[in-house]
Amino acid sequence: MFPDPYDRNCPTRQLLDRIGDQWTVLIVGALKAGPLRFTEIARRVDGISQKVLTQTLRSLVRDGLLTRTAYPTIPPKVEYELTPLGRTLSEPLDVLDQWARRHMSAVQRARDAYDAEHTPASA
Amino acid sequence: MFPDPYDRNCPTRQLLDRIGDQWTVLIVGALKAGPLRFTEIARRVDGISQKVLTQTLRSLVRDGLLTRTAYPTIPPKVEYELTPLGRTLSEPLDVLDQWARRHMSAVQRARDAYDAEHTPASA
Repeated sequence: MFPDPYDRNCPTRQLLDRIGDQWTVLIVGALKAGPLRFTEIARRVDGISQKVLTQTLRSLVRDGLLTRTAYPTIPPKVEYELTPLGRTLSEPLDVLDQWARRHMSAVQRARDAYDAEHTPASA
Repeated sequence: MFPDPYDRNCPTRQLLDRIGDQWTVLIVGALKAGPLRFTEIARRVDGISQKVLTQTLRSLVRDGLLTRTAYPTIPPKVEYELTPLGRTLSEPLDVLDQWARRHMSAVQRARDAYDAEHTPASA
């Protein structure tokens, strides 16, 4: 069988969900310029909770997209960095990020038009 | 202010989450070839519930990515079609779909290696 995310039993379905996740897009984007420490990523990705950041980083390391390197310094220093596989994903995700920035106002206009049409007329 | 999904208060944050959603990727991908009826989309996107498909289609119409056209036939026929704005999104999403298909085995190998390393040794 070829991989096919349209098939509910294909593991690409779940992978697709993972890579399009907003936190994945933002974290991978933040790491494009080079390795960062946990606290640096948390600062860059405004509003992410410590729990979600921890879980997402662990998943991305497990999926082979990031490496986690602990340096035996005092205080200990842990850095996350894109792997070569992660780098192949950073451009497609960057395109998504750019799409959202570029088309936000068009989407907002569409929402306003839709809501105006679907709101019951006031009595 | 420029749109910036790294800012938790920017509406691009939520838009990014929407467009990377697995259902969005699969539905927009299914409509690339032309308009489809609700039941045709449901058949193509294996395993999507009627409720989630209804909600996702409504959101995509509201966001200006799809049109919904009801034909006054018996039985009634309703078709969904990508708008020009939706078409600008279909290529970036197709790249994500292709990434998942192409790199699934590399991700699976990384997961196997990670799990082997992080599983407690058997007694």
